[in-house]
Amino acid sequence: MGAQSSAALGVSFDPTSPIAADHPGVTELFAVLAYGEISAFYRLAEEAKLSPTLRGKVAVAKMASAEMDHFKTLEAALADRGIDVFDAMAPFVRALDAYHASTDPSTWLESMVKFYVGDGIAADFYGEIAGALSPDVAAVVRDVLAETSHSEFVIEEVRRAVSASRSQRDRLTLWGRRLLGEAITQAQYVMAQRDELTDLVLTATGDLNGIAALFERMQDSHAKRMAVLGI
Amino acid sequence: MGAQSSAALGVSFDPTSPIAADHPGVTELFAVLAYGEISAFYRLAEEAKLSPTLRGKVAVAKMASAEMDHFKTLEAALADRGIDVFDAMAPFVRALDAYHASTDPSTWLESMVKFYVGDGIAADFYGEIAGALSPDVAAVVRDVLAETSHSEFVIEEVRRAVSASRSQRDRLTLWGRRLLGEAITQAQYVMAQRDELTDLVLTATGDLNGIAALFERMQDSHAKRMAVLGI
Repeated sequence: MGAQSSAALGVSFDPTSPIAADHPGVTELFAVLAYGEISAFYRLAEEAKLSPTLRGKVAVAKMASAEMDHFKTLEAALADRGIDVFDAMAPFVRALDAYHASTDPSTWLESMVKFYVGDGIAADFYGEIAGALSPDVAAVVRDVLAETSHSEFVIEEVRRAVSASRSQRDRLTLWGRRLLGEAITQAQYVMAQRDELTDLVLTATGDLNGIAALFERMQDSHAKRMAVLGI
Repeated sequence: MGAQSSAALGVSFDPTSPIAADHPGVTELFAVLAYGEISAFYRLAEEAKLSPTLRGKVAVAKMASAEMDHFKTLEAALADRGIDVFDAMAPFVRALDAYHASTDPSTWLESMVKFYVGDGIAADFYGEIAGALSPDVAAVVRDVLAETSHSEFVIEEVRRAVSASRSQRDRLTLWGRRLLGEAITQAQYVMAQRDELTDLVLTATGDLNGIAALFERMQDSHAKRMAVLGI
């Protein structure tokens, strides 16, 4: 409330970044990122069961553990603002759970494509938003999006599989497209529900055309990531 | 091989600690601890599904993530010795998987008692062994056994449940006893299979009487932990 009105009045507005540190959408941004980390943790831990090797299971457990480190960063950033992370995350549970339910991998390769492609989509979206945030807020966002070296493991496994099998490649290509489509669907659902977060995204991108341009850039990056995987 | 023969010759034997850093059982000790961390990670992630609240799920995800930090410490300690962690862990997979399969919790409270009591049993056993290890090796063991603050969460939840229900208390008391029994069964199985690790444990405890005395002390500590939980 205090933060909201001071943002509305432009108090503590940093002229070099369009979005003030106390914009109320920042809390929602941290919260959606935080629930994203939790749900990624449990998905990774669950999907690791599909791994044919202990080496694969351990690589995935390390990725899951990195998600929890990110969660702790966001929990602390919210606590600094006097916000309880559990209260803040509640409005985002449904959309993120729906994304994961609609993209439930049935094979280890689908899991791995999802780790890689899903992380990339999130990093593109939040990375662009970060450019418009005040330095302290942007630092938190960039910290939790930092790519881990574990994704190299994914690239190698997927490239090997698709170079050996045309039908695998076709299946995973469709799978990758579906991941992007579902992610955009859920992002739109969240934006329709959460005014403050939407205001933050609109401010970061300029206007509705800016959002459309952002989604186009995300599609280009997605295509490049798919190419890296050989699909 | 090199490490093995120099240990046999007493080379680099530290007179202040009965077990030289290059005792071949040290590699096995690190390996069994490493696989213990991996299996604990996956058990925690799996059992967290039983949690009735997101707060509980997150507390467990943090515990799981701490297990992976410990795994990385052990992986690095083995790498320093020129040992691949996956090769080293292989002989211990069966016994640890058997322990977890025979103590599969059916409720969230059973899970939480298992986290707390299982961690305590392991910490007692390895902590006593650590006292006989050379300082560098002991430091690794103590580091990965360090208790986390998350177990406070477990104590509160269990105490609340058992003070409210006598039948819960009776069930969990039996459950706690079974955990100790299964842990000792699997420890004996491992010792019967792994000569180098057994030699290390015998050296640390003095002799077979020393091992028996260690198991008695573990039973005392176990009873104290059960009392802390109110069972």
